[in-house]
Amino acid sequence: MTEHTIRAFDADLQALARMISEMGGLAEKQVIDAIRSLDRLDVAMARRIIADDAKINGIQHEIEEKVILTIARRQPMAADLREIVAALRISNDLERIGDLAKNIAKRVSVLDNDIQLRQVMRGVEHMADLALVALKNVLDSYIRRDVEKAVAVWRGDEEIDAVNNSLLRELLTYMIEDPRNIGICIHLMFCIKNIERMGDHATNIAENVYHMVEGKMLPDDRPKGDLTSLISAPIETKRKSP
Amino acid sequence: MTEHTIRAFDADLQALARMISEMGGLAEKQVIDAIRSLDRLDVAMARRIIADDAKINGIQHEIEEKVILTIARRQPMAADLREIVAALRISNDLERIGDLAKNIAKRVSVLDNDIQLRQVMRGVEHMADLALVALKNVLDSYIRRDVEKAVAVWRGDEEIDAVNNSLLRELLTYMIEDPRNIGICIHLMFCIKNIERMGDHATNIAENVYHMVEGKMLPDDRPKGDLTSLISAPIETKRKSP
Repeated sequence: MTEHTIRAFDADLQALARMISEMGGLAEKQVIDAIRSLDRLDVAMARRIIADDAKINGIQHEIEEKVILTIARRQPMAADLREIVAALRISNDLERIGDLAKNIAKRVSVLDNDIQLRQVMRGVEHMADLALVALKNVLDSYIRRDVEKAVAVWRGDEEIDAVNNSLLRELLTYMIEDPRNIGICIHLMFCIKNIERMGDHATNIAENVYHMVEGKMLPDDRPKGDLTSLISAPIETKRKSP
Repeated sequence: MTEHTIRAFDADLQALARMISEMGGLAEKQVIDAIRSLDRLDVAMARRIIADDAKINGIQHEIEEKVILTIARRQPMAADLREIVAALRISNDLERIGDLAKNIAKRVSVLDNDIQLRQVMRGVEHMADLALVALKNVLDSYIRRDVEKAVAVWRGDEEIDAVNNSLLRELLTYMIEDPRNIGICIHLMFCIKNIERMGDHATNIAENVYHMVEGKMLPDDRPKGDLTSLISAPIETKRKSP
């Protein structure tokens, strides 16, 4: 590359990093607001979240265009190429985090009656906080090229999975105790599942940051704590068979 | 482009189309096998599906590499560029369909006791058949550049959503009838949700085929039949409050 091409390429990379930061900030805000609207059963806020998802999708398209233009113009190799591809992949994960927040918001309007399961909501908020910290840290690790921080996020997903499992078990007990809880509990289960998937996307981003900086993949054997699909079924209860 | 560049570019496009076809075929097979393993509670088959997901991910990476190389080498514009970007996006959706099949397979081992809800399984199979037909047709529409077929898939997703809603309601009644059904019903709910999302990915692919051929987007107002988040909660039952 000539001196001019290198400078132009650096400007492209900086523009991409700015777009990822902006998109990441929006995704964080959507997640925070989705959990808030769920907690307060704030239907107006939920509607705003659903509408704002288009903004995140818009930035994703801009990033894709910028990536394509940069590859075509600069024909980057090795580390430069990895950096551009990382931006593309990270924007995919951020778009999906936005979708998951939207999906939680969609459930708010139907929960607009007496939500008695306040203690469950504390657990949901705790889990969402963990996912948000993971998202914030992984975006930081991307901006600073901080591999250690990325690996910490990657390892930390286990904790989110653990909270996920205990919340699912808690919800099961409410459903068994009183069948009138079943409807609301199913909505909360899908919300919790969405938060768990946000954690997975933060983990994906961490893997991409690692690959971008180190030029190799993280090992595939992250200790996986998600046991959702391992909940024993059928559930044993003390009720008599009808 | 020179005559030689055009021929080389056409060869690139054909290679990409072949890779998408191969990936699509694998994704279809994984979905078929996942539903089969769920129906038969075939744990060995489920394990094989989980292991084979890596193959789909491998092809996705190859497609990404091929796309980047083609953009860098040929610097395509307009329709040519749209075609390449479509391949990249479609491979993303196929990878996610593979993930959803794997997720269903993961639930098979825990359902390895008396599954009494045979009639629900018929509904699940029917829904999966609809998703598979959508996937097959949308891959056909991609290969043949058949916009009409793509639009038909896009419109047809409503039917999958309708089956999704009636299955969810059916599962709710089993849970209310007997709390010992709750565990198994939750697993089936997540399986059904996964099939519904497969339909959504087929719809995404249809949108990409349309954009690739027509150079414009489909309108955003597809009649959306997914009312999952609109199930009324809490559920009314005839049981007395404890």
